[in-house]
Amino acid sequence: MNYLSDTVTLPTDEMMRSIQNAHLGDDVYGQDTTVNVLEEKAAFMMNMEAACFMPSGTMANLASIMAHCPRGSKVLVGNESDIYIYEAGGASVCGGIMYEPIPTQTNGELAIGDLEKAFPVDVEDPQFALPALICLENTHNRCGGRVLSDSYLREVYEFSREKNVPIHMDGARIFNAAVASGVDVKEITKYADSIQFCLSKGLSAPVGSIVAGSHEHIKKVRTLRKMLGGGMRQVGIIAAPALIALETMIHRLSEDHARARDLAMGISSIKGITLEPEVIESNIIMFKVDPNLYSWQEFLNVTSEKGIVFSEMGYGRLRAVVHRHITDEDIFKTVESVKEIMTRSLITK
Amino acid sequence: MNYLSDTVTLPTDEMMRSIQNAHLGDDVYGQDTTVNVLEEKAAFMMNMEAACFMPSGTMANLASIMAHCPRGSKVLVGNESDIYIYEAGGASVCGGIMYEPIPTQTNGELAIGDLEKAFPVDVEDPQFALPALICLENTHNRCGGRVLSDSYLREVYEFSREKNVPIHMDGARIFNAAVASGVDVKEITKYADSIQFCLSKGLSAPVGSIVAGSHEHIKKVRTLRKMLGGGMRQVGIIAAPALIALETMIHRLSEDHARARDLAMGISSIKGITLEPEVIESNIIMFKVDPNLYSWQEFLNVTSEKGIVFSEMGYGRLRAVVHRHITDEDIFKTVESVKEIMTRSLITK
Amino acid sequence: MNYLSDTVTLPTDEMMRSIQNAHLGDDVYGQDTTVNVLEEKAAFMMNMEAACFMPSGTMANLASIMAHCPRGSKVLVGNESDIYIYEAGGASVCGGIMYEPIPTQTNGELAIGDLEKAFPVDVEDPQFALPALICLENTHNRCGGRVLSDSYLREVYEFSREKNVPIHMDGARIFNAAVASGVDVKEITKYADSIQFCLSKGLSAPVGSIVAGSHEHIKKVRTLRKMLGGGMRQVGIIAAPALIALETMIHRLSEDHARARDLAMGISSIKGITLEPEVIESNIIMFKVDPNLYSWQEFLNVTSEKGIVFSEMGYGRLRAVVHRHITDEDIFKTVESVKEIMTRSLITK
Amino acid sequence: MNYLSDTVTLPTDEMMRSIQNAHLGDDVYGQDTTVNVLEEKAAFMMNMEAACFMPSGTMANLASIMAHCPRGSKVLVGNESDIYIYEAGGASVCGGIMYEPIPTQTNGELAIGDLEKAFPVDVEDPQFALPALICLENTHNRCGGRVLSDSYLREVYEFSREKNVPIHMDGARIFNAAVASGVDVKEITKYADSIQFCLSKGLSAPVGSIVAGSHEHIKKVRTLRKMLGGGMRQVGIIAAPALIALETMIHRLSEDHARARDLAMGISSIKGITLEPEVIESNIIMFKVDPNLYSWQEFLNVTSEKGIVFSEMGYGRLRAVVHRHITDEDIFKTVESVKEIMTRSLITK
Repeated sequence: MNYLSDTVTLPTDEMMRSIQNAHLGDDVYGQDTTVNVLEEKAAFMMNMEAACFMPSGTMANLASIMAHCPRGSKVLVGNESDIYIYEAGGASVCGGIMYEPIPTQTNGELAIGDLEKAFPVDVEDPQFALPALICLENTHNRCGGRVLSDSYLREVYEFSREKNVPIHMDGARIFNAAVASGVDVKEITKYADSIQFCLSKGLSAPVGSIVAGSHEHIKKVRTLRKMLGGGMRQVGIIAAPALIALETMIHRLSEDHARARDLAMGISSIKGITLEPEVIESNIIMFKVDPNLYSWQEFLNVTSEKGIVFSEMGYGRLRAVVHRHITDEDIFKTVESVKEIMTRSLITK
Repeated sequence: MNYLSDTVTLPTDEMMRSIQNAHLGDDVYGQDTTVNVLEEKAAFMMNMEAACFMPSGTMANLASIMAHCPRGSKVLVGNESDIYIYEAGGASVCGGIMYEPIPTQTNGELAIGDLEKAFPVDVEDPQFALPALICLENTHNRCGGRVLSDSYLREVYEFSREKNVPIHMDGARIFNAAVASGVDVKEITKYADSIQFCLSKGLSAPVGSIVAGSHEHIKKVRTLRKMLGGGMRQVGIIAAPALIALETMIHRLSEDHARARDLAMGISSIKGITLEPEVIESNIIMFKVDPNLYSWQEFLNVTSEKGIVFSEMGYGRLRAVVHRHITDEDIFKTVESVKEIMTRSLITK
Repeated sequence: MNYLSDTVTLPTDEMMRSIQNAHLGDDVYGQDTTVNVLEEKAAFMMNMEAACFMPSGTMANLASIMAHCPRGSKVLVGNESDIYIYEAGGASVCGGIMYEPIPTQTNGELAIGDLEKAFPVDVEDPQFALPALICLENTHNRCGGRVLSDSYLREVYEFSREKNVPIHMDGARIFNAAVASGVDVKEITKYADSIQFCLSKGLSAPVGSIVAGSHEHIKKVRTLRKMLGGGMRQVGIIAAPALIALETMIHRLSEDHARARDLAMGISSIKGITLEPEVIESNIIMFKVDPNLYSWQEFLNVTSEKGIVFSEMGYGRLRAVVHRHITDEDIFKTVESVKEIMTRSLITK
Repeated sequence: MNYLSDTVTLPTDEMMRSIQNAHLGDDVYGQDTTVNVLEEKAAFMMNMEAACFMPSGTMANLASIMAHCPRGSKVLVGNESDIYIYEAGGASVCGGIMYEPIPTQTNGELAIGDLEKAFPVDVEDPQFALPALICLENTHNRCGGRVLSDSYLREVYEFSREKNVPIHMDGARIFNAAVASGVDVKEITKYADSIQFCLSKGLSAPVGSIVAGSHEHIKKVRTLRKMLGGGMRQVGIIAAPALIALETMIHRLSEDHARARDLAMGISSIKGITLEPEVIESNIIMFKVDPNLYSWQEFLNVTSEKGIVFSEMGYGRLRAVVHRHITDEDIFKTVESVKEIMTRSLITK
């Protein structure tokens, strides 16, 4: 029962078969037809002009930020966003770009008022680095898989037009957002100038992410991909299962969401666990353990002994990510095990 | 009555005379004896091994940060610090360094708990940029000239030793801090691995800042200064008045502090002005104007018409900086004028 | 008859089968056992402490250069090297590193005297960026697949020890060098501090390159790989065929070399073609066409119409790369076609 | 008799007096009228739209290169240019820009054919960094003060228009070029999109350089100057003597040129010295000493004992720079001393 991340998902049999039949070529010369089809399909699904396959979400975000932001500008990111916390400062290192972390609301939003403060009154004053991009994360990982609402997206989009600054969406789990909202993903991507999404999380493809955006953006991203070292050869080997992922794995994400809710309901009722089940919107649940009973490190150890793998996301918040390999029975067993573990502790202390 | 900044101070007659008699040489070849004497004197005063003259505080901070922080590391700075806000993101652009802004307390401190959060639990995990430097600002500009206390400095110093990360102090107004605390500046610099201070603020020299630190640090700073373009020629022309500044201008800063308190007392009693006079510790006062009476832009305009120049420091906070060219009479007149301006508004509205 | 590059090679059936049976896991968490085995095997073969799988040779070189060279240092590269010409300046962009191109001898060597000149007499003088790395390329692409001799490698290695600067070998085709020299690859890698080699050129794996070096180097490379966006998920999908490539594809490179020699012999005898067959040492041949008969663009067009794909490598030099999909019959047909094409032109003009 | 560099020149009495009378203000707020006048005068003299005062020629070049070249582009520089050799790789470090050194002809020119080679045939191919700027040096330091001819400048200017790439001129000694050519400096600057010149070399001002160019270029340069740390306060202290330098020191450069020719004629006739007097065009002479008589290090030592200071410029070339403090008598004595030193050696060996 591995709730570490939905990145642990393995390819399906259909994906594995697709690899055997994939048309391969050297993508550095544009000759891998499989990845070409994948990129076209992805662009179409996102309702964007073009798309580019990337070896990882990190590179997808990095190349997009560099394509949007000239040297010496600022990228506005959530202070709880994966881009800010987990991507090793790449935009500063490779792009000479300054990160400005904006407070992240509990629902994953960046308040318009806080974004506003990042824009200096006097844009001519050379002492200020100027904002060149707003990054949003949807669903929001460290906020527990929260989905950005249509009204918020519209509001921040309008703000960005006023400020003449584009929006990049880190949509690593964008299909979770679409499924959770019950809308086509195009209804979300219409509020973004560029988007990246991962093929290897809930969608279960082995490797890769997509950046979609305007022709001009994707051309820049492709150039940056080469420089960063993301230009690969017979990439159809990984593009083929990614295509299957797009064709077959989106709708079933609702199962993960249902199980995540079940897990949340089950765990939230256990004494010593703090969790708000009503904010579980997709496949991630966040909870805390009463530190008088277990430190989070102890709790990770004792659950791990029972074969249950959670992770910690800062400030002692524990995360469980539900994915294709988690069954209803797993959820049941997990709740039972956690109940047993917590009860044992209550008795001892 | 120009309260814009203490950077507007002009050199004294003695400084101007010193220029005429300065021994000059080409400092790029180390042959300007005046700047050599200045650097030695500065190092001695700071109780540091060595010092280096810089054309500006911005370069002094930038070169120090780059000397401490390798590419891809993080520098921890106050979210209200001048380094973070007013220095154009130089460390990201020139150094490939990520800024991590830490909440600034109203007294200019960065809480140890907040600093602690910037250090990842797992330093081996490649997704995290690692902190390589803590920057403090003393006195703290945007906090209204607040002086960091000895106990806080000791605490953060000890924390930095535990974490094995050096401290750089942006001491643009470090002598204001020393004078306000009634201690020798060495009692402050002992808590820093490197410090920069400005010769051109309260000290009234025309141009320049000093970085002081270990021999190794200053050697790196000197190398970076060349690359950034701060290596100058017959620099004795500006080093000579800077020497006079160090010799003659420190003790008189207490006069500025007294006048700043007088100004604060005078203004704080005016209806429609919000100001806490008890937190005025050096030569800067911060206040707000009741927005029902004047927007801050309007207030700047009407005071300016009376020959009084204030500035705005974000969020509508107005700043007055007291310096050598502000007399007791100026303070009196300023208070009278502001009183008149505010009264006029109260009557009108 | 596609002589464009050996990167066009497709995976073998055995490689394709290996994918189906690969043990997969999330390599970002170190849980893909297939890539772990590949890295261990690669390190062993290179006789290095450790190795790291990379999505491309470009990233393998970039991360290695960044691991060796601090910000502001110089990397010495051949002016005809792939690193200098075809990798988009990544070390300057992402690393703040200055490239210093050294003249490349016709046999791919960088003369020791020329390397020597890149080291300033006065290393303390801050105006000089200091060399931190020497890069060699073996076999050398733009020199026509030339193999660096053991005596040269020993000489440059000794020079590098004197200068206290490491050597990185761009060994994209290092096994071609080993096979051509009739030595184990360890006899070459012993002269390098780090090496990268491609799994996707003559070795026919679909995707990927390896960096090998000391534990410390590989740790740095792995951290940089994350930042650059080369950390991938179920990477066993591409590591499995790469393992088969290392196990089965090295010795057969001698066939490519033999065919390259045949092609060179055949073409060199054609009037209007300039080619020195005695310098064909591996799988690449370079030649020129008499510009009175065909411009190189025309020649590429007319051969292309006959189904023969060459490429141009600067200054009108044409390149043919022999690989697994080129047969004896292809060589025969190619020579016949080129002969026909050139004869036709001689008659016309 | 200090021939080390013309940077050793001291300010004139008139310059020193100008400092006393200078109108000063805080240039960071645009309030130093002296530097404003200097910038206007400099722009007018260069026939450019605008100009910006900089603390050094290094920063003037660095900010200009960064203003012209986006991250990831290439700057084409002479392989013997000061920008490439003596400025610590700043454009790579601070700008993410790749230097491409072009062979420097003995007269300081970069051959059009060599520049042409730096432009890839396929500008869409992401593996190539693209040229964004051509830098020329005039007069050319390491080529012995050579002056770029009008016909060459026109040719390279036309080439740059074809390629749609601007020209930046490192005119540290541009007035030496103008005086040597007998033309107004405008006749040279018309071939450049931006130019930097030094106030502190032959012109004898204590500190500073000017960048001149279009309004747009200077706006960018001013922004970059702030970030690099070149924004200074009461900069009139150094701008005032710089103004006098522009008003009084240009025409007398012809005296330095005449003395340089005298020195060259005198030295070239000495046995054991190799020097071509006909290529002495401005105030720099380059020569070599027969290594059988003295190594260059020995020669620098023995001349230094006689109070004569030369410097070495790579490959054992010795440089003498003539400037305002070198008199006819100095030239006479220098020639006599060198003659004596060389004769002594001939007798001994």
